Amino acid sequence: MRMVDLIEKKRDGGILSDDEIRFIIEGFTQGAIPDYQMSAFAMTVFYRGMTDHETAVLTDAMMRSGDTIDLSRFGTKSVDKHSTGGVGDKTTLILAPIVSCLGGKMAKMSGRGLGHTGGTVDKLESIPGYRTTLSAEEFMQQVEEVGVAVIGQSGNLTPADKKLYALRDVTATIDSLPLITSSIMSKKLAAGSHSIVLDVKIGSGAFMKTLADGKKLAENMVAIGKACGRNVTAVMTNMDIPLGNYIGNALEVIEAVQVLQGRGCEDLQSVCRVLASNMLALCNGWELSYAEQQVDEAVASGAAFAQMKRWIAAQGGDASVLDDTAKLPQASVQYEIKAPRSGYIQHMDTQLVGEASAILGAGRKTKEDSIDFAAGIVLQKKTGDFVEAGQTLAVLHTNKAETLGDSEQVFLRAITFGDIQPEMQPLIYGVVR
Amino acid sequence: MRMVDLIEKKRDGGILSDDEIRFIIEGFTQGAIPDYQMSAFAMTVFYRGMTDHETAVLTDAMMRSGDTIDLSRFGTKSVDKHSTGGVGDKTTLILAPIVSCLGGKMAKMSGRGLGHTGGTVDKLESIPGYRTTLSAEEFMQQVEEVGVAVIGQSGNLTPADKKLYALRDVTATIDSLPLITSSIMSKKLAAGSHSIVLDVKIGSGAFMKTLADGKKLAENMVAIGKACGRNVTAVMTNMDIPLGNYIGNALEVIEAVQVLQGRGCEDLQSVCRVLASNMLALCNGWELSYAEQQVDEAVASGAAFAQMKRWIAAQGGDASVLDDTAKLPQASVQYEIKAPRSGYIQHMDTQLVGEASAILGAGRKTKEDSIDFAAGIVLQKKTGDFVEAGQTLAVLHTNKAETLGDSEQVFLRAITFGDIQPEMQPLIYGVVR
Repeated sequence: MRMVDLIEKKRDGGILSDDEIRFIIEGFTQGAIPDYQMSAFAMTVFYRGMTDHETAVLTDAMMRSGDTIDLSRFGTKSVDKHSTGGVGDKTTLILAPIVSCLGGKMAKMSGRGLGHTGGTVDKLESIPGYRTTLSAEEFMQQVEEVGVAVIGQSGNLTPADKKLYALRDVTATIDSLPLITSSIMSKKLAAGSHSIVLDVKIGSGAFMKTLADGKKLAENMVAIGKACGRNVTAVMTNMDIPLGNYIGNALEVIEAVQVLQGRGCEDLQSVCRVLASNMLALCNGWELSYAEQQVDEAVASGAAFAQMKRWIAAQGGDASVLDDTAKLPQASVQYEIKAPRSGYIQHMDTQLVGEASAILGAGRKTKEDSIDFAAGIVLQKKTGDFVEAGQTLAVLHTNKAETLGDSEQVFLRAITFGDIQPEMQPLIYGVVR
Repeated sequence: MRMVDLIEKKRDGGILSDDEIRFIIEGFTQGAIPDYQMSAFAMTVFYRGMTDHETAVLTDAMMRSGDTIDLSRFGTKSVDKHSTGGVGDKTTLILAPIVSCLGGKMAKMSGRGLGHTGGTVDKLESIPGYRTTLSAEEFMQQVEEVGVAVIGQSGNLTPADKKLYALRDVTATIDSLPLITSSIMSKKLAAGSHSIVLDVKIGSGAFMKTLADGKKLAENMVAIGKACGRNVTAVMTNMDIPLGNYIGNALEVIEAVQVLQGRGCEDLQSVCRVLASNMLALCNGWELSYAEQQVDEAVASGAAFAQMKRWIAAQGGDASVLDDTAKLPQASVQYEIKAPRSGYIQHMDTQLVGEASAILGAGRKTKEDSIDFAAGIVLQKKTGDFVEAGQTLAVLHTNKAETLGDSEQVFLRAITFGDIQPEMQPLIYGVVR
């Protein structure tokens, strides 16, 4: 078998056999197939696509390219959530305690932020003492005892995906449905959970800019997860406005605490309720309406917030900061952005809002950059709100006053004003089971 | 400027600016743009194509990527011929003496054979003593004095094309019209001749399998040559049957001598007449009909054959072998392939015939392989001929008897028999000026 022939086959609209796909992924992982052939292949997949079966085999081959985590001891109780990435997305901090205090077992690996999107691991590290690295034994033991552990990527999971993603990133081959699907699902499958809820973000701040694209991705991922014997549900949620009002690392921990205390931004509460109940429906075999009741009760009773403190403490974090969030890292400078005109906010470009936050120190441009946990943005107005000229739109938090000008400029570019109240988009576009 | 953005622009159907194309070729030549980005770019050009202007700028950028040869001292008299490659194509051996004895100046660099196609340099090296490497001064002086010199590729001509072609070869991105056009034309332009005749081969043994594709390539190349200020004509010729009856290196020298002596295979004579007269029309400014007369006379008078001996001797070769071709390398084994059935030859797959010859030792699989100058095939029957079962179809020449079985098998696979005489295809499909 020669790689050049397989590229040509796909180029001319052919369907690759299982063996051919495995040959490509194994060869690429081991270095026998060079980057320049793989990037040409990725580009031809961009144009030609892949069948559902090809995508499933590709996903399986990538999953098998490295270590896989064995969570079989937890049966169907092991449950994971994956978000396709967004701005202000702190749902893991909220879902992990809710779901684990209701019987789910969350053995979760999370990523760091890059570019305009944040990463759960960075958010957790803003809590003093929290350890994002655990040994395999510590990790499993904590999941057994506490019900939840969230650590950074560890071990050699899906090296094929790491290598391929890095290559796609510099060859304009990110935007390919089968490649996106197999990238996400190979990682989720390798991470071992039996039940998986996918949060497919749709909108200006997300990978998927349109509902049609997002729906296709959701359907693809669910089909492939099922083909691999897992329980999978995809929830399509709106990322045309930031999720919640707090963007930044310590700031998002504060907002997570608010939601677990039954307070906080309504859109964030709603999304978390849908995701948590779908996770519990899968892992506990509950009816959705029953799961929703249980979620509401866990929050109202304080059980979920108590579980968050238990989890953070188990993982070495100072849980007292959750009772007194003023003890979290605080920015030395707070700056109010005023509305330049009166009117309704028609639209917020979420990606630009994320970039404005990153400029303040909350994000990284490259993997090597360090993060300022205290930096970020607290929104006071969002899409649909009416503002008077001079009213505060948002508060910027930073330790580097020199970044304020750039950040404000980017933030204001993100906002479109108008004279008529815009029609509100749904927060949840639908669920694919 | 970032390469990934340019790949994306082309991927989404954009038209690249001159600066963007130059950035790509300069960066790739210097190594600043890695192979994996260039192969993804080549694949996107495969799908999206390029405008005529983009292709012209690409060609110009590739031409400028290395040395160029200055033939301005010969004015319009400098004339080159390029064939897109075929089986049994010994036209350069015939055209060079004809054209140079009629005033054309042929300062020609030729390639070696690879795969199923032969190379002029290999054919010339089958003549004892012939030097395919000359210093720049020797080369120019011989063109001045004799009117012709044919050497192997030398100097650092179009390094961008060498690098890109090697990459395209292993990434299934050869078959792209703008990439083929710019590859051929950048080399021809860098080689310096003012007048250029392109022999675009069409058929089973050629790059271009259909007339429509061949015509597009011919039109493209002529347009780009003219845009760069050269005189260019393209002749579209049939490569659905091998050109002439002799395939192999020394064997093709023998057939070239036959044609220059006014004998030999008619199809080969016709193609050479058309190519030579078009070359002379360009470089001497002659009417085509006058050029044809002059070509016929140069052959009939023996002037062309005398010029061949002068050229070969000037370049160190033993010209006496041209008078007595039995002195050329001879194969120890000659084997007759018999027709397995009676009938008309409907079709010969020229690529397979070339492969049958390569198996006998006449070709290379990789650049490092050595060649047996004596090996090859002499056809006794061609498309359209009627054969009786058991009649000789061809004679295999080799020094390795163990290759006969494989070669015969491949040769017989190349031939389709039938009961009705097939309609003959034209030898010359047309001329693009």
